[in-house]
Amino acid sequence: MAIMQLTIIPLGTQTPSVGQYVADIQQTLRREGFPHELTDMGTIIEGEPQELLALAARLHALPFVHGAQRVVTQVVLDERRDKTVNLGDKTAAVQARLD
Amino acid sequence: MAIMQLTIIPLGTQTPSVGQYVADIQQTLRREGFPHELTDMGTIIEGEPQELLALAARLHALPFVHGAQRVVTQVVLDERRDKTVNLGDKTAAVQARLD
Amino acid sequence: MAIMQLTIIPLGTQTPSVGQYVADIQQTLRREGFPHELTDMGTIIEGEPQELLALAARLHALPFVHGAQRVVTQVVLDERRDKTVNLGDKTAAVQARLD
Amino acid sequence: MAIMQLTIIPLGTQTPSVGQYVADIQQTLRREGFPHELTDMGTIIEGEPQELLALAARLHALPFVHGAQRVVTQVVLDERRDKTVNLGDKTAAVQARLD
Repeated sequence: MAIMQLTIIPLGTQTPSVGQYVADIQQTLRREGFPHELTDMGTIIEGEPQELLALAARLHALPFVHGAQRVVTQVVLDERRDKTVNLGDKTAAVQARLD
Repeated sequence: MAIMQLTIIPLGTQTPSVGQYVADIQQTLRREGFPHELTDMGTIIEGEPQELLALAARLHALPFVHGAQRVVTQVVLDERRDKTVNLGDKTAAVQARLD
Repeated sequence: MAIMQLTIIPLGTQTPSVGQYVADIQQTLRREGFPHELTDMGTIIEGEPQELLALAARLHALPFVHGAQRVVTQVVLDERRDKTVNLGDKTAAVQARLD
Repeated sequence: MAIMQLTIIPLGTQTPSVGQYVADIQQTLRREGFPHELTDMGTIIEGEPQELLALAARLHALPFVHGAQRVVTQVVLDERRDKTVNLGDKTAAVQARLD
């Protein structure tokens, strides 16, 4: 199991706002059933590495449907094989150290 | 005002866990008074661009104090000048589209 | 056609050097025939977006074979549909402006 | 000494091309005398960590001068304290393993 952060930036759009593109991504994630969390800098998704990167390819293609001419997608994939890490575990572990 | 995501990865440490380093960062942020939010993939911080990058330099130096031999720090800085964006505004704007 | 930058960081290894892991990636790229270029901060690869992300999944898995316990892989995928961009085109376009 | 990769993405521009912004960055780097190398996915620069992040703040501000409304800047800073690493050393070390 891995955690992936995905940020999709459409270029050559008329406005600097990307909210509509981000909403598209959230709707796809709900429909496909991936556990996920939206942050101010991207979307964090839990799944198997191979499935997550295949998902990234599908999400990267979405803004072109809405007229973007260029899309820059950033992915950070974090996988541990020494223990199981699910969405929320990392923040909880840090919080426990701070309390 | 800008939003910065910061992820600090220490290399050449004996274990693959980085929770202690992340806790150090959180304590520094609390002490310095920057509005911030911890996610599973990094820390999101609000501030002026120049101050945020100077802060990133201080946080990047922390793991060396605890024995790391190499540190890779990733920063994404997002600044809009057409409107004011504070921590939490971007997720709220997307949520409003989804509801 | 798209351009992808890939950076693979193994954690929980005994040394802070990652040269062996990077050499593994280069050998896989040569064998699979993807046009690519090694930089000091990652590997830049040319291909179709879906194939590039499937390739990223295979390359991400390599360090585990050599004993890494945790792997963080960063991908930046840049695709334009308004014109064809091949490896080297972007640097050449900037160079032309500077000369 | 550290190595930094910098990628600056202006949003809300009329065209999806960012060559002019990248050329501005190169001219600033030449003028300020930082050793640097342009790649298809960003600019790699050598220097002290604190100076590099202060430089990133100056470069991040450039596209606003040319009319961008929003700028997303990505920085990856890689610092080793167990040995000195200069621009080009990492690619040379990998090349030596492949030959």
